[in-house]
Amino acid sequence: MTVNKQIVLASRPEGAPTRENFNFVEAPLPEPEAGQVLVRTLYLSVDPYMRGRMKDTKSYAPPYALNEVIKGGTIGQVVESSEPNLRKGDLVSGMWGWQQYAAVNTCDLALIDTDEAPITAYLGALGLTGLTAYFGMEDIGKPKDGETVVVSGAAGAVGMIAGQIGKIVGARVVGIAGSDEKCAYLKEKLGFDVVLNYKTEHDMSAAIEKACPNGVDVYFDNVGGDISDAVLRHINRNARIPLCGQISSYNLEKPDIGMRPQTLLLTNTALMKGFLLGDYTKSFKEGRAKLGKWIKEGKLQYEENIVEGFERTPEAFMGLFSGDNLGKQLVKVADPE
Amino acid sequence: MTVNKQIVLASRPEGAPTRENFNFVEAPLPEPEAGQVLVRTLYLSVDPYMRGRMKDTKSYAPPYALNEVIKGGTIGQVVESSEPNLRKGDLVSGMWGWQQYAAVNTCDLALIDTDEAPITAYLGALGLTGLTAYFGMEDIGKPKDGETVVVSGAAGAVGMIAGQIGKIVGARVVGIAGSDEKCAYLKEKLGFDVVLNYKTEHDMSAAIEKACPNGVDVYFDNVGGDISDAVLRHINRNARIPLCGQISSYNLEKPDIGMRPQTLLLTNTALMKGFLLGDYTKSFKEGRAKLGKWIKEGKLQYEENIVEGFERTPEAFMGLFSGDNLGKQLVKVADPE
Repeated sequence: MTVNKQIVLASRPEGAPTRENFNFVEAPLPEPEAGQVLVRTLYLSVDPYMRGRMKDTKSYAPPYALNEVIKGGTIGQVVESSEPNLRKGDLVSGMWGWQQYAAVNTCDLALIDTDEAPITAYLGALGLTGLTAYFGMEDIGKPKDGETVVVSGAAGAVGMIAGQIGKIVGARVVGIAGSDEKCAYLKEKLGFDVVLNYKTEHDMSAAIEKACPNGVDVYFDNVGGDISDAVLRHINRNARIPLCGQISSYNLEKPDIGMRPQTLLLTNTALMKGFLLGDYTKSFKEGRAKLGKWIKEGKLQYEENIVEGFERTPEAFMGLFSGDNLGKQLVKVADPE
Repeated sequence: MTVNKQIVLASRPEGAPTRENFNFVEAPLPEPEAGQVLVRTLYLSVDPYMRGRMKDTKSYAPPYALNEVIKGGTIGQVVESSEPNLRKGDLVSGMWGWQQYAAVNTCDLALIDTDEAPITAYLGALGLTGLTAYFGMEDIGKPKDGETVVVSGAAGAVGMIAGQIGKIVGARVVGIAGSDEKCAYLKEKLGFDVVLNYKTEHDMSAAIEKACPNGVDVYFDNVGGDISDAVLRHINRNARIPLCGQISSYNLEKPDIGMRPQTLLLTNTALMKGFLLGDYTKSFKEGRAKLGKWIKEGKLQYEENIVEGFERTPEAFMGLFSGDNLGKQLVKVADPE
């Protein structure tokens, strides 16, 4: 008998997540109900935002419940279907999360076309990651030709796409990342104009000033904290700051103490706004078309870091907070049949 | 011979402004050139934003130069004119600032109609003050019927108008002010739903939570600092935060350290934006018409605190930072002839 291995939230992390926060459990293979199909997980996504849902506090997405499967972006193959619109063998993306099998409503699944892009792109550049970068830049950042864009967490999955969108529209793009290897990748492979290593820059504010001789028009922020304090000191009048993530504060148990940005926003008539991908669902098709076109034209590249084995999911997730990963962090669970 | 008494910036304040930062000087009566008229100051305005212009740092308005007359909202009477569009005796508003007389370009003057509203209203509810509240609410705050609006610095000139605009559109309005007298005024005279005295509330966050059972949709912020930290903890999804002032930080010499709001903006997909009245000049006519209509209908009231005597201008300005003033702070320099 096939069992369904699952990972559940055993306890809410205090500070950085640890192995003890996760439990492996075994459940019987789920039985699809009417309107559902049985899918087998091929790849799953681990993302920084999931840390937020592990807290029991008010946020845009409800907190994960204890002892329930952790939900997130997933790609799989239909292994059993009596629904007309999906057949056995179809590749699909959805949000069933950290488990080997799931019975999923067909309306919560999207078909994957591997002629368009490699399967894993549907969890990355063509998936929630790419769309997050796209809408943050399109709706809030609005970079223009000749402007200066700074991206923090630039070697992360979202950051590297946000920066490339800046280059596509003709902006000067300055990235901030956490290793010389990442900096070299962003500069040499992705065409960022300058990339700063925050771990070795002893004065980030001075480094930003030098890297942005015309000031900062768009700051696409994935990290928050001291790095943001340094960037915000150099924003221009009418700067736009899409808040995509605040990874430096996700593991904090207390309020995030540092430089209040309000005076800088006030004196520069700047805009800072948090955004949620779920608010843009009506425009996903448009966003995917734009991203897909740029990928085909070779204007948009992406990087994946794939860990092999379902058992290594907690480890892959925890690695997001050590700043080691370059690009999208995935876990490969199985090969398609 | 008539002399022109002027107040110049003698030195840049470090911390709170003091009498020593200002010098009284005497200049000869200016001679209007072609396109100019000679005006005699009747009322002048002292405003918190002026503290920002006394710093020698980048901002939306250039810093005041040392040993030059301090510019700001002013009302006066034309005493000499060879220009066709202005006659001797006309009442005008402009920005010639802290001096008894000035030769001003007619294009920088607006005629005042005292049949429409009392003369001093043109420095307050119908002037830059009222327009600041109007555009902050109209363009950024966008309060809706049934929403909750919180206004800090609610007994200040801008704050009390912003709060009343909230009431006009049907929102629940919670003010924050610095004395029981001010709180009573806002509640009883202006119809605010709740007004909190930040000097006697020992737990502002709990007080805000209680005053805003449905959370905070719009936070019109005049003060920043700890008060804002407390309000921001209770913002709702898609909250809007017009940054109008940060009076708590104007006198700080160091970066403003406190709660970084980014995580709250992110998890609530909230918008925070600084704004500058000068960006709305094309809509001033529309704004004045709206404000004037509300004043005539009795929906919008305003309060003025008038100090008598040009010599007391520095004192009136310094008083803005002690939190003593209710409504618009003006200095009466002379009566019209």
